[in-house]
Amino acid sequence: MRNIKLLLAYDGHDLSGWQVQPNRATVQGTLAMCIGRLTGENVLPQGSGRTDAGVHALAQVASFATGSKIPVENLAAALNDLLPGSIRVLEASEVASDFHARKSARGKTYRYRIYRETICPPFLARYVWHYPYPLDEESVMHAASKVMGEHDFTSFAAVDPEQGHEAEEKSAVRTIFLSEWQRCGDELVYTVRGSGFLHHMVRNLVGTFLLAGKGTLRPESIKSILEGRDRALAGATAPARGLYLVAVEY
Amino acid sequence: MRNIKLLLAYDGHDLSGWQVQPNRATVQGTLAMCIGRLTGENVLPQGSGRTDAGVHALAQVASFATGSKIPVENLAAALNDLLPGSIRVLEASEVASDFHARKSARGKTYRYRIYRETICPPFLARYVWHYPYPLDEESVMHAASKVMGEHDFTSFAAVDPEQGHEAEEKSAVRTIFLSEWQRCGDELVYTVRGSGFLHHMVRNLVGTFLLAGKGTLRPESIKSILEGRDRALAGATAPARGLYLVAVEY
Repeated sequence: MRNIKLLLAYDGHDLSGWQVQPNRATVQGTLAMCIGRLTGENVLPQGSGRTDAGVHALAQVASFATGSKIPVENLAAALNDLLPGSIRVLEASEVASDFHARKSARGKTYRYRIYRETICPPFLARYVWHYPYPLDEESVMHAASKVMGEHDFTSFAAVDPEQGHEAEEKSAVRTIFLSEWQRCGDELVYTVRGSGFLHHMVRNLVGTFLLAGKGTLRPESIKSILEGRDRALAGATAPARGLYLVAVEY
Repeated sequence: MRNIKLLLAYDGHDLSGWQVQPNRATVQGTLAMCIGRLTGENVLPQGSGRTDAGVHALAQVASFATGSKIPVENLAAALNDLLPGSIRVLEASEVASDFHARKSARGKTYRYRIYRETICPPFLARYVWHYPYPLDEESVMHAASKVMGEHDFTSFAAVDPEQGHEAEEKSAVRTIFLSEWQRCGDELVYTVRGSGFLHHMVRNLVGTFLLAGKGTLRPESIKSILEGRDRALAGATAPARGLYLVAVEY
């Protein structure tokens, strides 16, 4: 058996997220089907974490074991022939047998794109959150800086049975290495790099930072929201379509 | 009654083209419905020409007459509130009563995008033709230069009952002012500006220029293909997804 690591990009707009579900087009399910057609094996590739319906990936990582003799250098092209254009294998490589896309991950980077002009080009509608309303962008940036470091992120985690992307981990403590907004032309772009992320965490952070931009929350209040460990203290969940999984570190 | 001119952009991938059809999402049908909701009038906006299913527009022009008192400066925002994100009104203006989006048009510019690298990013899959195979790009460019000027384009028109974008005009003679390929990063991009275009004409030109790039057609043969006035002489129709209506001149 060989252990294979895949680097994946996908346009998540028309997909029901990463995790396999009956009668829905998911990344994991589609990938499993194509690996099955190629190798004849019944394989469920493991992702670095789940992405929700509508969320995109520039470099998701997946791993699976296979007894297939297909040369690894042909694997990306062979899978891309079978996959829909919305999912691409950017790279396939053989890795050590103890490598696991989720368990071996040491950190992740996400990006969130907000389109700020009045009319959102139709070609961006699936790929950004269109938010043309007034915002004090300095306050948005200031608020984002307040989540840097190690914190319990319960206030920013979805209140749902799913314990999030790292399902077996019970603790909501994560370390944020980078949390930064930048103006890129007509877009306000958030980049966050951390040890791991809870379910909806990036979208809930974005929704909360926007409250600071609207003036309904002082950037300094982020600290007390974290300490309160209560989802009700934070802002609304930003739409999935603006979110990208950008990198996974091992 | 006032005569209104709209400048429109749309992502045509999930739309069944410009022309209204029962039980299908078309640009004309969706626009008519939204104008109806806004004005209470039963109006069918006229486009500068039909675009086929999957074809995009950066600046399609439409016109319609209305008795509505809505200030024209509010019209774009009001329609954008009702339209899906895949269709945007970029501009609305009041024009002379004899202006007609199709009949008044003096020229049009189309663009066609071909993605040349091995792996097409999933975010471009709807917006380019992915053609990673060998091509002599010099020959593609050379072939394109051969359609400049006034010609009968019967060989490049769809053989179908529809007489094309300018339905009532029987002649297949059109003048091409510009026909040029450029390398733009990973893309080969065709720009064509002409007095008018027959049904499928740009896509058939692109398919034929690629034959020259593959070496199965000499660029000089474009002349005899034009003179033959026979669709069978030209190449296959390139996919809709790479085509953009870029500008309409009046």
